[in-house]
Amino acid sequence: RRYDYVTDGDEIYRRSFATIRSETDRSHLPVSAETVAVRMVHACGQTDLIQHLVVTPDFVPAARAALAAGAPILTDAHMVVSGVTRRRLPADNDVVCHLRDPRVPALARDWGTTRSAAAVSLWADQLDGAVVAIGNAPTALFHLLEMIDDGAPLPAAIVGVPVGFIGAAESKDALLQHVSAVPLLTVRGRRGGSAMAASAINAVAQADEL
Amino acid sequence: RRYDYVTDGDEIYRRSFATIRSETDRSHLPVSAETVAVRMVHACGQTDLIQHLVVTPDFVPAARAALAAGAPILTDAHMVVSGVTRRRLPADNDVVCHLRDPRVPALARDWGTTRSAAAVSLWADQLDGAVVAIGNAPTALFHLLEMIDDGAPLPAAIVGVPVGFIGAAESKDALLQHVSAVPLLTVRGRRGGSAMAASAINAVAQADEL
Repeated sequence: RRYDYVTDGDEIYRRSFATIRSETDRSHLPVSAETVAVRMVHACGQTDLIQHLVVTPDFVPAARAALAAGAPILTDAHMVVSGVTRRRLPADNDVVCHLRDPRVPALARDWGTTRSAAAVSLWADQLDGAVVAIGNAPTALFHLLEMIDDGAPLPAAIVGVPVGFIGAAESKDALLQHVSAVPLLTVRGRRGGSAMAASAINAVAQADEL
Repeated sequence: RRYDYVTDGDEIYRRSFATIRSETDRSHLPVSAETVAVRMVHACGQTDLIQHLVVTPDFVPAARAALAAGAPILTDAHMVVSGVTRRRLPADNDVVCHLRDPRVPALARDWGTTRSAAAVSLWADQLDGAVVAIGNAPTALFHLLEMIDDGAPLPAAIVGVPVGFIGAAESKDALLQHVSAVPLLTVRGRRGGSAMAASAINAVAQADEL
């Protein structure tokens, strides 16, 4: 080899997680969320993410139990579908994104909303007890909260980490108003994204880090 | 609606890009890379990314010409495959990831390397004039550089933004040693990821932002 680098995949993970643990203070988080926080930092390469992370104490137990019982993972982005590591899922769980459903463009047009929000409306029959992972669109998270506020069945847990400059921080503030109603994980502010959403799901899906 | 938010997709993009432009200084970048930088900031929600971004003056012209001529996009991650917006591609370009190729596990074992690096070795016949987008594994970028150093055909342009704590910063430093050999884009340090890689490709693929 012409360069000096670690080539063992498991060893790269071990050293990465050890580096993250040595550089971060995770004392404000529930113990059950510790591996989730470490994996999310790993996904973005930034230790200061921890300070913006909010995880309710019931989030990991509720999401993990739901996945073990076969609950689907509902997401707003195909990148999250790609990012979920299938061999970590305990029950070969479905990972569902309706963004390319043929009904979506007309729904978005009729309602005057984004395709992401229109696709979330198609979760109606799947929401009860599901694990939600929103990693892209603030409008998707807003629409989910509107469905819940209007009496839709509650998911088992919500990962709500849309990213961006218009509505992302606000949508996560709105999610945090539901902290007593549903187990949730979010990252305050503009940061988020599909890699963070997928890494949270991957950490929840299996207690072992490797 | 129960919440106050923008629901027009194009308007969300326009306001996002305007916010990013008002909050960032892009004067150190080539003019041709301005829309790429803005789109990458949009993908991660962080304006300070700009300071860590390196784009050679030939990167956007070379990558754009290659895509217009039908060059494939070679990537190390299925999340990048999902993140490339097909309607922005000028020639219905292939987006290629060999990570699930059946030859990969044996190659990785035989060579004592990661599956990501082994998958990159399968680019050998496709590398000449291609657009490379590495958004996940430092070992994939190291392996690509080793292939190039050993005389492999040069790609038209390289997006090299692996993420993480073990080898990511070092692999990007090694990429920057090739700055006179190949048009390139990278983000110094630990930050990177599939969303950043895909956003760079999406910006290059089409000059119009919307």
